[in-house]
Amino acid sequence: MIKVAILGATGYAGSELVRLLSRHSGVALSLLASHSYAGRPFSEVYPMMRGVCDLTLSEDDIEKAADVADVVFLALPHGFASGLVTDEILSKAVVIDLGADFRLHDVDTYEAWYKVEHRSRSLLAKAVYGLCELHRSQIASSRLIANPGCYTTCSILTLYPLVKAGLVKKEGIIIDAKSGTSGAGRGAKTASLYCEVNESVKAYSIASHRHTPEIEQELSLAAGCPVTLQFTPHLIPMDRGILATCYAHLEPGVGEEEVEDAYKEAYGDERFIRLVDTPPETRFVAGSNYVDIGWKIDKRTGNIVAMGALDNLVKGAAGQAVQNMNIVFGFDEAEGLGLVPGAVV
Amino acid sequence: MIKVAILGATGYAGSELVRLLSRHSGVALSLLASHSYAGRPFSEVYPMMRGVCDLTLSEDDIEKAADVADVVFLALPHGFASGLVTDEILSKAVVIDLGADFRLHDVDTYEAWYKVEHRSRSLLAKAVYGLCELHRSQIASSRLIANPGCYTTCSILTLYPLVKAGLVKKEGIIIDAKSGTSGAGRGAKTASLYCEVNESVKAYSIASHRHTPEIEQELSLAAGCPVTLQFTPHLIPMDRGILATCYAHLEPGVGEEEVEDAYKEAYGDERFIRLVDTPPETRFVAGSNYVDIGWKIDKRTGNIVAMGALDNLVKGAAGQAVQNMNIVFGFDEAEGLGLVPGAVV
Amino acid sequence: MIKVAILGATGYAGSELVRLLSRHSGVALSLLASHSYAGRPFSEVYPMMRGVCDLTLSEDDIEKAADVADVVFLALPHGFASGLVTDEILSKAVVIDLGADFRLHDVDTYEAWYKVEHRSRSLLAKAVYGLCELHRSQIASSRLIANPGCYTTCSILTLYPLVKAGLVKKEGIIIDAKSGTSGAGRGAKTASLYCEVNESVKAYSIASHRHTPEIEQELSLAAGCPVTLQFTPHLIPMDRGILATCYAHLEPGVGEEEVEDAYKEAYGDERFIRLVDTPPETRFVAGSNYVDIGWKIDKRTGNIVAMGALDNLVKGAAGQAVQNMNIVFGFDEAEGLGLVPGAVV
Amino acid sequence: MIKVAILGATGYAGSELVRLLSRHSGVALSLLASHSYAGRPFSEVYPMMRGVCDLTLSEDDIEKAADVADVVFLALPHGFASGLVTDEILSKAVVIDLGADFRLHDVDTYEAWYKVEHRSRSLLAKAVYGLCELHRSQIASSRLIANPGCYTTCSILTLYPLVKAGLVKKEGIIIDAKSGTSGAGRGAKTASLYCEVNESVKAYSIASHRHTPEIEQELSLAAGCPVTLQFTPHLIPMDRGILATCYAHLEPGVGEEEVEDAYKEAYGDERFIRLVDTPPETRFVAGSNYVDIGWKIDKRTGNIVAMGALDNLVKGAAGQAVQNMNIVFGFDEAEGLGLVPGAVV
Repeated sequence: MIKVAILGATGYAGSELVRLLSRHSGVALSLLASHSYAGRPFSEVYPMMRGVCDLTLSEDDIEKAADVADVVFLALPHGFASGLVTDEILSKAVVIDLGADFRLHDVDTYEAWYKVEHRSRSLLAKAVYGLCELHRSQIASSRLIANPGCYTTCSILTLYPLVKAGLVKKEGIIIDAKSGTSGAGRGAKTASLYCEVNESVKAYSIASHRHTPEIEQELSLAAGCPVTLQFTPHLIPMDRGILATCYAHLEPGVGEEEVEDAYKEAYGDERFIRLVDTPPETRFVAGSNYVDIGWKIDKRTGNIVAMGALDNLVKGAAGQAVQNMNIVFGFDEAEGLGLVPGAVV
Repeated sequence: MIKVAILGATGYAGSELVRLLSRHSGVALSLLASHSYAGRPFSEVYPMMRGVCDLTLSEDDIEKAADVADVVFLALPHGFASGLVTDEILSKAVVIDLGADFRLHDVDTYEAWYKVEHRSRSLLAKAVYGLCELHRSQIASSRLIANPGCYTTCSILTLYPLVKAGLVKKEGIIIDAKSGTSGAGRGAKTASLYCEVNESVKAYSIASHRHTPEIEQELSLAAGCPVTLQFTPHLIPMDRGILATCYAHLEPGVGEEEVEDAYKEAYGDERFIRLVDTPPETRFVAGSNYVDIGWKIDKRTGNIVAMGALDNLVKGAAGQAVQNMNIVFGFDEAEGLGLVPGAVV
Repeated sequence: MIKVAILGATGYAGSELVRLLSRHSGVALSLLASHSYAGRPFSEVYPMMRGVCDLTLSEDDIEKAADVADVVFLALPHGFASGLVTDEILSKAVVIDLGADFRLHDVDTYEAWYKVEHRSRSLLAKAVYGLCELHRSQIASSRLIANPGCYTTCSILTLYPLVKAGLVKKEGIIIDAKSGTSGAGRGAKTASLYCEVNESVKAYSIASHRHTPEIEQELSLAAGCPVTLQFTPHLIPMDRGILATCYAHLEPGVGEEEVEDAYKEAYGDERFIRLVDTPPETRFVAGSNYVDIGWKIDKRTGNIVAMGALDNLVKGAAGQAVQNMNIVFGFDEAEGLGLVPGAVV
Repeated sequence: MIKVAILGATGYAGSELVRLLSRHSGVALSLLASHSYAGRPFSEVYPMMRGVCDLTLSEDDIEKAADVADVVFLALPHGFASGLVTDEILSKAVVIDLGADFRLHDVDTYEAWYKVEHRSRSLLAKAVYGLCELHRSQIASSRLIANPGCYTTCSILTLYPLVKAGLVKKEGIIIDAKSGTSGAGRGAKTASLYCEVNESVKAYSIASHRHTPEIEQELSLAAGCPVTLQFTPHLIPMDRGILATCYAHLEPGVGEEEVEDAYKEAYGDERFIRLVDTPPETRFVAGSNYVDIGWKIDKRTGNIVAMGALDNLVKGAAGQAVQNMNIVFGFDEAEGLGLVPGAVV
């Protein structure tokens, strides 16, 4: 039984962690912290958890968290984690950061896209990018894991086999992603109000979304050369789910067989990736840690349209964080994640 | 390990049974049947279940089901079960009927409200009304369980303690219920189309909904005298969930203390009923087997407003069916039902 | 051409006024004011209005508004209007207040329910309750009109003919109302976030909602004696619309004919009230100034279930305000309100 | 006052025509026809129209329609119109076809994509593609107008200025479009049920959607050379609205100024096209005939991301059909289309 602490437990990602971990057979929730709700029971903030998790929330305090827990999850706004994590903290507890601070290997890229100074550059070398299916062995021996973003997990996993196997051109990749509204977080902003989101769709952060360099970093690694791409996120009226529709030009001569082989080789044994032969729908993965990936070759245009769907709060955040924890602590990788997609279909 | 068969497995209630039972540690799914989709894999009809349940659907055939399974769940339109269940079937398998045919003890009432002839009157005496919290001991020794309706489970559980303890007048009870659209089933009807349901609310089956006599039967039993009440269901734009807002006149002298005592006495030890001190919201129970119940006394009017919330597909259908199975077969009552409410909150 | 000013123009009710008045043939929008957005173009706050209304917002200033306009609409939180309106203001402009301050004739009732001091008691006698269908002639000669609440308009219009004609018992009336989320306003509150409202339903302000005394006031006037009733509002996941499901005990001997006569007598000539023979649905009135009213007598229980549906932002707020303006200034009562319900059906 | 007939009046596009034309000052609705609902009042099928349009529906009969009306709108499934329209019909009435049969100039392309035989090839030369902003003068003198598809109107208008002015490469254009569910029509299909659409997003008809050749036809005309592109539609959980996110490579040296000039030159005087400086949102055009178009140049990638938003039932279908009628019959082009976008924002 390992002990777990969560800072930022009352955001959507943090509360999803509580939901998942409350059913994990190998962990005990030791400390839940929330700057906004300190002093109140978690289940008062999230009444769905009455009787499931009634812990009282404490103040966000990483020292205390590292003292009482074997693993500390950080579910904080970007820029916070880099000011909190230290070698001393890491000597006491494994840190799994759901924020962006340790995801980009290149600190200049981080500072350029996030417009803040990185406050613990020296730790970057120790951080592992926690995309489980790509970096499993490094994760297993790490004490600082940068849990990937929601859009990035979806986009990278969808494109990785194509790029890795050299089946598509490195130039001209376009990712058009659609996300449910929980991705915008629980902050009380006018733009997130029901009547502002409902019955509408829009693009946002065009040409400037911070998940772009994260996707490019991982696909460049896979390609063995720099990959620059176009990433456009959209907000759609639903709670959970991301669909990434990815467009790439196939290299000459590449057909169905090569593509299928590449996906099967990359993910044939993966428990959370399902290769599907109809277009993936977010409802088919909602509430679960699955990523559904499908594709279609258009001979007319020479493009491949590859699509990935996941639940932004599970595989796109808390679920992958639990998966990372399972890898580090030697649990079965699916422990606590045996979730059946729960939407009505 | 007991063997399970489901007839009508591809309706919303049937598929929810599959979802729940696929994670139940004590059962094996032996036979899934569907008139509409026989011959196809279950996961082709419900792609969310790819890799979780890929059984091929067979034709609805209760004989075959009873031959191969220890328990047969019927998730069929009303009127079917009464023509299928026989003493011979019951000698081979326990039958848990999610339909209406065996719920009403009085066959004339059944035929008056359902406008069909009951085809197995003799079995009615053997059927137990499967509202677990009220009839647990009878359920344990029954082989034919009439799983309650969704509205009825919610309404009865909300009002039962008040009626049982004699705290409210038997006359003038009003139940105004609101249901998500999965309650309308998966039939391809114009009225159930997205654009016909979305952005709207309406009442339906006013003064004529078939769950009315079912609620009256159980509350009359609790009261020890006939209870006639007004039940009005409403359709609202969401997938899952029922909220029953119940109005009753308090007997003179009844106050907060008596009401709280009555609820605690009735449900103090129940694992799936949560007594809550803020108005219940359906999102707090969605995806789980919980019923959240709250109430408010209005001294100005002398009324009590009691509210119950549940997930119509879980506690209102498949979850309670599993709970009934657990009781009959001696499993922990919560086995397979350890679901954390999954909605974003 | 009369000149119009709106204070609080960027709330949902205020912006709906702009939407309606921008198509009214007899008015010119002279001044739009907003405390939060002063200095910015209206169409920057509501981009749907680009090219339709690009006026720059000024600070809320009733003096200035009354100087430049013939009619001033107030769409402010309760408690503000009573501190702003004076005899001098009324000497310059007609005031139509969409807030609650001048709706209740009894100031003690106001202060008891609203928990604030009323700051212009002397003006109460001059205020007319602006429910057009009930008080048309008084409205025509008034300079201070208290535009009714959304729930109240719907509830009163639904029950008025029954109460006025003495067809129902005065005791035991219950109103169970369901509202879309725009009724909660545009304030950036966590409880109004998309993910907190979507896929859920709840009751709120049980036994304490401030529209209760307003409904009681008008029905008491119709009855000729005090009427005390139970009013319970619910929040449902849609933008616009209120459905009020009203329950009352019929007086002995009252049947279909008497009820139909009462409704026809009350509303036979009304242009915005439609008596319908199927349960009203909010989508059928969305975007329009209509109120659809239907009913069903339950002989089994002796109750009548009467239902009214309207758009909370139109007939429940801005539309009725325009209707009031039309009455006062002698326009055709439907001018600017010839809206066809616009939802997909 | 011209007389209007509509065949297929009870589909979503047909009923939207009724909604719009019922407020048009220059037309009288003479005949509404519906195969499914013949003999019933229109307002029984669409109760929102009670008191607005209570005409009795007749059988679909183009002969009768052309006899009684000056203009016949066809809102029928593809393949029907080509079997109904004849020179004789056109001699009696103008035909505005909301279906696909007369949109493609090349009959082989039509038959290849639609998999049906075209039954009136000789009429193709007489048909004008009714995209008002592009072909206004030809429309004015035509008697057979092929009203464009919803996706196509949105996509073509968004890309036309860029292609026409030669600012983007002709190869590699990608259109990722998102549509509300009314686009799927009113047919009672399982895939269109509320619970199947709600809380999900998916792509469909990848590399095979029939609006593709229509978009290519018009952009090829603008480019002066063949344009082949990738078009991917998505279904999202809302009633109305299409957002087309279009990706193209800028020609060397093209910057903000050239792009802005191109859009202003193309649409500077258009009443229904708004060039916007924030990403367009479908709620800002819902219920109106507007198209909002915005764009962003990404210097990092050399791409332009151009976005168009419209209401698929208005500018994407019935609104544009009315606009075409206005052009043909010499009405003000905005008559009956003076709609203020009606969504809550």
